[in-house]
Amino acid sequence: MSEQQTTQRPEHAQGGTYTVPGQEYVRDQNYLSTRITRDGADGYPVEPGRYRLVAARACPWANRSIIVRRLLGLEDVLSIGMPGPTHDERSWTFDLDPGGRDPVLGIERLQEAFFARDPEYPRGITVPAIVDTRDGAVVTNDFGQITHDLSTEWTEHHRDGAPTLWPADADERAEMESVMRRVFTEVNNGVYRCGFAGSQEAYESAYERLFTALDWLEDRLSTRRYLMGDAITEADVRLFTTLVRFDAVYHGHFKCNRSKLTEMPVLWAYARDLFQLPGFGDTVDFEQIKQHYYVVHTDINPTQIVPVGPDLSGWLTPHGRESFGGDPWGGGTAPGPVRDGEQVTAGHNPLVPR
Amino acid sequence: MSEQQTTQRPEHAQGGTYTVPGQEYVRDQNYLSTRITRDGADGYPVEPGRYRLVAARACPWANRSIIVRRLLGLEDVLSIGMPGPTHDERSWTFDLDPGGRDPVLGIERLQEAFFARDPEYPRGITVPAIVDTRDGAVVTNDFGQITHDLSTEWTEHHRDGAPTLWPADADERAEMESVMRRVFTEVNNGVYRCGFAGSQEAYESAYERLFTALDWLEDRLSTRRYLMGDAITEADVRLFTTLVRFDAVYHGHFKCNRSKLTEMPVLWAYARDLFQLPGFGDTVDFEQIKQHYYVVHTDINPTQIVPVGPDLSGWLTPHGRESFGGDPWGGGTAPGPVRDGEQVTAGHNPLVPR
Repeated sequence: MSEQQTTQRPEHAQGGTYTVPGQEYVRDQNYLSTRITRDGADGYPVEPGRYRLVAARACPWANRSIIVRRLLGLEDVLSIGMPGPTHDERSWTFDLDPGGRDPVLGIERLQEAFFARDPEYPRGITVPAIVDTRDGAVVTNDFGQITHDLSTEWTEHHRDGAPTLWPADADERAEMESVMRRVFTEVNNGVYRCGFAGSQEAYESAYERLFTALDWLEDRLSTRRYLMGDAITEADVRLFTTLVRFDAVYHGHFKCNRSKLTEMPVLWAYARDLFQLPGFGDTVDFEQIKQHYYVVHTDINPTQIVPVGPDLSGWLTPHGRESFGGDPWGGGTAPGPVRDGEQVTAGHNPLVPR
Repeated sequence: MSEQQTTQRPEHAQGGTYTVPGQEYVRDQNYLSTRITRDGADGYPVEPGRYRLVAARACPWANRSIIVRRLLGLEDVLSIGMPGPTHDERSWTFDLDPGGRDPVLGIERLQEAFFARDPEYPRGITVPAIVDTRDGAVVTNDFGQITHDLSTEWTEHHRDGAPTLWPADADERAEMESVMRRVFTEVNNGVYRCGFAGSQEAYESAYERLFTALDWLEDRLSTRRYLMGDAITEADVRLFTTLVRFDAVYHGHFKCNRSKLTEMPVLWAYARDLFQLPGFGDTVDFEQIKQHYYVVHTDINPTQIVPVGPDLSGWLTPHGRESFGGDPWGGGTAPGPVRDGEQVTAGHNPLVPR
């Protein structure tokens, strides 16, 4: 999902416009919700090699799917296409690929795959999207369902030792859904509600909600290593993709500035713990993240100048969270090295020095 | 001095426009440089009760003069007028005063005092400015000369125990001038060079210069309590007014974001040491500071939304700089309480709780 506006946005909103004067930010949450399942009930069965995940590194919603695909070891069965960090009014584009085309789908703009599904497709062209390589049409861009189904429908293709990101226990599952709901409304979307507020009042209300939730998380994580306890789950993936962007873009660009992540000691240690695990930090491209937010949102950064900071070296410092015990992989194993061709560009991440 | 552009700015620059596409920021440094001196050589002798200092709390250049006036105890001989934090294209205004007029000068806009001096006054209407109450005309808006002359020409009106802000020793003076020159070009003006850069290249170059200088200061202040050693001087006043604004406005709004001041341990302790001294922190209005930058610079913050953060409570935490020894007042004494009517608004500063 990008924060790209829909074509149904108010008439006075122009390209590059994400704020609506006088209004609070409301995310369009209508997606193509066709599912890829084991039983193929929606017409799209799980099938190795058939689908392509299109996921821009810049986008936090897409970043979830990149992490989950890697944690579960789905690289050989689900290929990945990566649009560049900036998009124009119409679409994410494959401007980082040779010739500006996705090498598998052969398209220049992700919009083409949405139009292949629905020539009148009326909403935002968002990532992540899963495209059927048979007809080049988007199957789904429902980011929440996508990672859920990678965990629960693609099970037979998971690598040996893949972690269980969705716990089977019903009570634990219910608690995780509740935590994820609050993280979504207050944090994942909460930072956008701050940044795209169309009035001082809407912004201040959004800021209070965001930091109230971050205080709750700071408290929750002060007694357990991960959000659900001793092992990572989908809930951690979802919180991580917002936290890792916090100081780079949300703190300044979105005015989420009560403090930096580096000044919230529990969350900062928790975020570093995840960042240093294979599958998390090695998917993050800080340069693409900054380029995306600062270049695309011209109504809040009309100069399009991209900050040089923040200093990222702290991400590799010891986090001390091992003292809680637990095992991030829940008895499983860490994923292996990032596949050739899927590494973050050198210099764009402290794990991958120039 | 405000960062208001002159009327000679490029034609494509509009009101509220501080950046010039493709160009680096260049500050207009031409001021009305008439001096108020003991001997009255320029026609303006030092005279108690005759002049009025006009100094907006928001502006770092004006903040210097507010601090120095208070450190030297000149409140009874030099009155002060305070424009509000936001100004329009034409002028700083006395919108905080009853009826929107300065109670002594009787004017609504500082521009009127500049035009009383020169009806064709062609440059920016800046603070600080000293106005002669006899004719309501600006004598000088040369911010560097103003604080120098308060120290060296108004000597007989200084309070007992006033600190010596300009050391008499020639070598020390030469070193101080050199330090202040670097602080001015690289830090005081350096943050503006980042914030008003008209191109990515100009911004990146400005950012490098700024943080190179901050690293130098971090190093210099790691072995001495104040910039010139054991006691405060004018050099500390000049550095302080930039540091105290750093996290509130320069870090986010001006993209000076390698780190916050709170993440530069030596400078942060040094800034707290000064903030907690009478005459420094008690002149600072963080709300006015944020209002000014975020509302006035519409070309870099078109929504004019003012951040709620940062959390300011850290300013009152122990700084530990006493371990260097020294005496901030250099054998003199601290100024007494802030005068009635000159206090910062409650809630706008952690020293003045709501």
